[in-house]
Amino acid sequence: MAEVITGVGSYIPHIKIANSHFLEHQFLQEDGSVIDNSNDTIIEKFQAITGIEERLYLEKGMTASHMGSIAAQKAIEDAHIDPETLDYIIVAHNFGDIKDKNTQGDTVPSLAARIKFQLKIKNPNCVGYDLLFGCPGWLEGVIHARAFIKSGMAKRILVIGTETLSRVVDDHDRDSMIFSDGAGAAIIEYKEVEDQGIITNKSATYALAEANFINFDTSFNKENSLATKYIKMKGRKVYNFALTKVPAAMKACLDESGYSIKDVKKLFIHQANEKMDQAICDRFYQLFSVSAPEHVMPMTIQKLGNSSVATLPTLLDLVTKKKMENQEIEKGDVVIFASVGAGMNINALVYKF
Amino acid sequence: MAEVITGVGSYIPHIKIANSHFLEHQFLQEDGSVIDNSNDTIIEKFQAITGIEERLYLEKGMTASHMGSIAAQKAIEDAHIDPETLDYIIVAHNFGDIKDKNTQGDTVPSLAARIKFQLKIKNPNCVGYDLLFGCPGWLEGVIHARAFIKSGMAKRILVIGTETLSRVVDDHDRDSMIFSDGAGAAIIEYKEVEDQGIITNKSATYALAEANFINFDTSFNKENSLATKYIKMKGRKVYNFALTKVPAAMKACLDESGYSIKDVKKLFIHQANEKMDQAICDRFYQLFSVSAPEHVMPMTIQKLGNSSVATLPTLLDLVTKKKMENQEIEKGDVVIFASVGAGMNINALVYKF
Repeated sequence: MAEVITGVGSYIPHIKIANSHFLEHQFLQEDGSVIDNSNDTIIEKFQAITGIEERLYLEKGMTASHMGSIAAQKAIEDAHIDPETLDYIIVAHNFGDIKDKNTQGDTVPSLAARIKFQLKIKNPNCVGYDLLFGCPGWLEGVIHARAFIKSGMAKRILVIGTETLSRVVDDHDRDSMIFSDGAGAAIIEYKEVEDQGIITNKSATYALAEANFINFDTSFNKENSLATKYIKMKGRKVYNFALTKVPAAMKACLDESGYSIKDVKKLFIHQANEKMDQAICDRFYQLFSVSAPEHVMPMTIQKLGNSSVATLPTLLDLVTKKKMENQEIEKGDVVIFASVGAGMNINALVYKF
Repeated sequence: MAEVITGVGSYIPHIKIANSHFLEHQFLQEDGSVIDNSNDTIIEKFQAITGIEERLYLEKGMTASHMGSIAAQKAIEDAHIDPETLDYIIVAHNFGDIKDKNTQGDTVPSLAARIKFQLKIKNPNCVGYDLLFGCPGWLEGVIHARAFIKSGMAKRILVIGTETLSRVVDDHDRDSMIFSDGAGAAIIEYKEVEDQGIITNKSATYALAEANFINFDTSFNKENSLATKYIKMKGRKVYNFALTKVPAAMKACLDESGYSIKDVKKLFIHQANEKMDQAICDRFYQLFSVSAPEHVMPMTIQKLGNSSVATLPTLLDLVTKKKMENQEIEKGDVVIFASVGAGMNINALVYKF
């Protein structure tokens, strides 16, 4: 028996925000002081490090659950299943439904219940819940799906990642340029097949000093209300953390799978930052004393930014639908998924198509 | 093999709010009109229906994760385990950490990461995530724990429910008098025993018209900001829903367990409303054409109010620690847990001590 991905879908928002959008922003340091560089220079450096040229923001009037429903509908169609046969709807996010220009997240009822409502699924035995696990939430949802299937408690599960980070960014923080919106979804099913599906998985939570590497905090503009918080990131600490922990988790997962580094056809890494992801990839292959093959790591960050829980399923959707240059998956391919984010949480999963 | 509760703990806040606290409130109808009754009468009727005489609010300066940590610490001590051996920390809540007098919830990092930080647990393989499933979240976390154990993916799990509903109530809504704050926790472990632990479980999500029976919406005072939302409940609809769905789920769970109605020693029902819980109990026993035994349903609602995800583990803690009159659990006792809440979600679980 195996846990197999049978369908994938995504929703890519339509409001394109080029880096030039930020030219008039007043960027500040953490202590509130003005940054001693022109915005031109700040943006140029930003792009050199993160690789981000533009990002997409969700249309006003829509929220994370709307995006999640559309991505879910596409995954359901891709899997050719009747949505009434779903045992679980797992929705990974971190901030809930936030309306444009509002600061209050809305999570009651859960986004899973809202998405089930929007998909008009009647079957009460299709159980919906929300999973908060930082950016690795979608992949963690896939791991939950595996647990439900392996335990015999479910056979068909919809796992969604949806987030509107554009609605929790501090305009005075350069890191606001990293974040974007998006949603992705996959159907995970029990199949009576061998040598296919999820092979191994690993998750970890580092919550000593790491608990504050990514958090919710007040604006760098000290004149702003202390009552309103924004997503905040200690960039260098996150970078160093990810660079040691993620490749090690990927290696542990691969070693346990019985496959060798030469079997690995693709790395699906959470799209956080181009330089960081490239460094994770290089470090991972260094652990096996080989070089990373060309095109092994598909990247969307340049055009889509970092949409948190949505990056992995969106990337998977684009690659499996052959919408990315030099990127294809064939039956039998062994791939590794990995993500890192607030918690700090990490996870990795070896999957065979 | 079995999944066994080996330790329980709770945190009961210290700010006691008697019903008289609400005498000066301006209660309004949903349409903003003034209620044609004195507050004395409103409160008297409220107490007759809900049974609530007083409720407890969390101390200012503390948040849901602080409460959750204290309850968790007590459960860890009660189970006599080393917290470094935990495989998972599952935290059920619905609104995150909300500071006193603030409207913005904070869920980054997750409450599970915050609680892991506060408990100073170093082991990265102890994975923490948050679960949003309305009031039934804590019991659903226990069901997740069962899935992880049955799948072979974990052996020892901390499941916490923590919530500060006092920070999301609309002062102009009579229903605000129902809600309170609290936290409870339990350790669920894999044990090589037979005829003990979780026997059967059932969950359901009703998200057609039901999705809006409990939600987050604007104040009844139409002069208040439309940007701020509060917990809102369509009381009569929730009552009717709970009265048909909860007893049926409990019966399905009991029938599947192989135990008979005469084996049932206790019903642990989510403390939502005294009249509703009594009606659920009566209806459940009617399904078997017998009367409910005396003292079968321990109740805390009169003194603790409805603290959402915290009511069940708090109730379990008080009963197992022999802190409630006429309430005791002995080894071998078969009990049923059940809860209902926003989603609308319900769940039930048959457990043998």
